[in-house]
Amino acid sequence: MKKGVRFRVTYRLSGSRKQAYQCARDICYEQTVELPDELIPKEYIRKNVVGRVEVFKKRDAFFEAVISYPVKAAASELTQFLNVIFGNISLKGGIRLERFELPGSFIKNFPGPAFGVAGLRKIVKAYKRPLLCTALKPMGLLASEMGRLAYQFALNGIDIIKDDHGLTNQPYASFKERVSRCAEAIKKANKCTGFQSIYVANVTSGVSEFKKRALFAKKAGACGLMVAPGITGFDLMRSLACDSEIALPVFSHPAFSGSFVVSPESGISHYCLFGQLNRLAGSDVAIFPNYGGRFLFTAQDCADIARACSEKMGHIKRAFVSPGGGMSLDRVREMREFYGIDVIFLIGGGLMKGNLASNCRNLRRLMS
Amino acid sequence: MKKGVRFRVTYRLSGSRKQAYQCARDICYEQTVELPDELIPKEYIRKNVVGRVEVFKKRDAFFEAVISYPVKAAASELTQFLNVIFGNISLKGGIRLERFELPGSFIKNFPGPAFGVAGLRKIVKAYKRPLLCTALKPMGLLASEMGRLAYQFALNGIDIIKDDHGLTNQPYASFKERVSRCAEAIKKANKCTGFQSIYVANVTSGVSEFKKRALFAKKAGACGLMVAPGITGFDLMRSLACDSEIALPVFSHPAFSGSFVVSPESGISHYCLFGQLNRLAGSDVAIFPNYGGRFLFTAQDCADIARACSEKMGHIKRAFVSPGGGMSLDRVREMREFYGIDVIFLIGGGLMKGNLASNCRNLRRLMS
Repeated sequence: MKKGVRFRVTYRLSGSRKQAYQCARDICYEQTVELPDELIPKEYIRKNVVGRVEVFKKRDAFFEAVISYPVKAAASELTQFLNVIFGNISLKGGIRLERFELPGSFIKNFPGPAFGVAGLRKIVKAYKRPLLCTALKPMGLLASEMGRLAYQFALNGIDIIKDDHGLTNQPYASFKERVSRCAEAIKKANKCTGFQSIYVANVTSGVSEFKKRALFAKKAGACGLMVAPGITGFDLMRSLACDSEIALPVFSHPAFSGSFVVSPESGISHYCLFGQLNRLAGSDVAIFPNYGGRFLFTAQDCADIARACSEKMGHIKRAFVSPGGGMSLDRVREMREFYGIDVIFLIGGGLMKGNLASNCRNLRRLMS
Repeated sequence: MKKGVRFRVTYRLSGSRKQAYQCARDICYEQTVELPDELIPKEYIRKNVVGRVEVFKKRDAFFEAVISYPVKAAASELTQFLNVIFGNISLKGGIRLERFELPGSFIKNFPGPAFGVAGLRKIVKAYKRPLLCTALKPMGLLASEMGRLAYQFALNGIDIIKDDHGLTNQPYASFKERVSRCAEAIKKANKCTGFQSIYVANVTSGVSEFKKRALFAKKAGACGLMVAPGITGFDLMRSLACDSEIALPVFSHPAFSGSFVVSPESGISHYCLFGQLNRLAGSDVAIFPNYGGRFLFTAQDCADIARACSEKMGHIKRAFVSPGGGMSLDRVREMREFYGIDVIFLIGGGLMKGNLASNCRNLRRLMS
C-alpha cells in the first residue's frame, strides 16, 4: 500500500451553504481523529490522517461533499471501513452517505461475490432471461409441508426457491429438518423436469450457529445461502462469501436495514447500502423491495440499486438484483423492461393466490 | 417453553387513526407469516403464529400499538428476535419500535451483562461515586505514544481508559502493539497511585479476528472490551459477553447505529436500542452521546436510555450508562444530578485542552 493513498466518500448535506460546509469540515475530524483541530498533537496527523473535503457543491436541494480519508484509517477491514465512512456521523442528522470510490490498493482486500451474475446463471443453467425466485412460507408450516411446497415450485419451473427470511430454527420446523426436506424435494422435482432449480437456505443466525448452518445446508443440497446483513453485520456475510469450504452463492436480505434508507436527509443511500456495500461484502444477489409494492422504495431508488450492482467496481463481480415485496405476475413485463434481463423476480404470495402450479407455469412462460 | 407464550412489542405509529390501525394489523402479518390473511393455509397458523394487536391507543401526536408475537417465532435466537420485532418493517416509514416486554421463558436464553453496575464497580474499586472514563486518541499516534497517554490518564485518577472507537489495527499502531503498551502503562501507573484504573480495548472487527483480539487483549492485561454492535451485529457482542474464556466487562459503542434513532417517526427508540437491546446482548456499559454535546440526543433521550439500563428486566443485571461526545469538565455537576451516581462520565478531548494532568485531577476531585 502506497503512503498517502486515500479513498473518497460522497455525502449529501442539509442546511445552508455555510452550515453544510461546516458539517463537511466536522466530518473530516469526527470520522478520524475525533478531536478539534487545535488539539491534534502532530502535524503528520493533521496532514495525513484527518479527512479532506475534496469537492463541495450545491446539488438539487442539498449540498454534496466528497471527502477523502487515508486508506490506512480503514485498516484493511470491512468493519473499520464502515466505521470511517459512517460510524459516529450516523448519530447526527442532515448527513446522508451517498457512495464511495475505492483505490485498487484497498479494494483488493475484498474478493466480492464469488459467483456474481454469470456464476449464478451457470448454476441454474439460464443464460438469457430473468431468473425466477419464490419464498417458502408461512412460518408455522411443518418441515414436510415446506418440502411439499418447494417441490411444487420446482416442478412448475421456479429457478430459485428460498426460505422466507423469517424461517430460522423455529420449533414449528427446525432448521435441519426444513433444509433437508426442501433440498431433497427440489432435487426430486429436477429429476422430473430436467430443470436446475435450486434451494436457498436462510442461515441468518448468531455467530455460534452461522457457519454450522451453512455447512449443514451445503451438505443437505442447498445451492445458495441467504443472510440479512442488517441483523448479522456485513462482515459475517463477507466471511460466508469468501469461505472456500462453503462456496455457495450468497443472497443478501434487507431485513433490519430499512432505517438507513427511510429518510432522504440522513442514513445511507439505496445505491450505497444495497448496491456498493452488498457487493463489497460478497453478496451475489441483492434482495430489496420493488417500487410499487407494499414498501416505500421508489423507481429511482430501485434503479440506483441496479446501477450499483452492475457498474464497474474494480475486480468485483456484478451482482444480481432481486426486487420483491408484494410483487405479482401482472407486473413482470414492466419489471423486465425496467431491470433488463439481469434480474431475479422474487414473487412470494403472488404465486399462492389461486392455483400455484398454473401461476408458476404462466410466470415461466413469460420468461421465454 | 409453554405452548402459546407470547412477548409484547410496542410501536409508535404515524398517520390517521385508521391508517395507524391498519398499519398495526399489517405488522402482525409482515413480521411473521408474510402473507395476507386469506392466503394463510392453516387455522393453527392464523391463531397462533400471526402477531396480535393487544392494545391500540392515541398517544401524543402518534398512535401506540402493543403487538404480541409467539415466543416460538423468535426461535430462542437474538438474531431472529431482532427480525421479528423490526426486520421487514424497518423498510417502511411511520413505524417506530418503542420497547419490548419478554416473558421469563424467553429472557432466560439471554444471560445479559456478566458484570453489570455492581461488577464493574468491584473491578475499579469505586462504590459510591460516578466512574471516570476517557478515550485514547487521536488515530495516527504511535503505540508508544498511546501508551504514554494512557499512563498519564491513569496516573491522574481516570478509572477507565479506553481506545477511541476508531482504533482497530491501523498501520499507525497495530492492535497488538497498542493494546500491550496501553495495558502495561496503566498497570505501571496503578503501582504508583494505588488506584485500580483499567484499560478497555476496542475489539470491533470482523468475525475472523474478533475473538482472537479479545483473547489477546485479556492476556495483555485489558480489563474490559469495547464493541460497536451497529457494525458487528448485536449477536457478536452477545457472544463476547457470555464467553467464559474471556469474562471481561463489555462496553457497547453507538457507532453506525445512529440511523435507527435520528427520526422520531421511524427506527428504534433510544430506550430500546441503547438500553434494552444492549442489555439483552450482554453489554455492561452503554456508551452514547450526551445531550448538549456535539450530537443531537435530547435530555429526554438520555433519560430514557438511563431508565432502560437500570429498570427491572427479569434476571438481567443493570448496565452502566456512559454519556460522552463533546463533554467537558464544567458539565460534570449537572450530569451528576441528571444521571445520579451510576454513571460513567466519558470525557475525551475535554481533558486534553490545557494541562491534561491537572484536568484529570480536577475531575477526580469533583467525584469525592
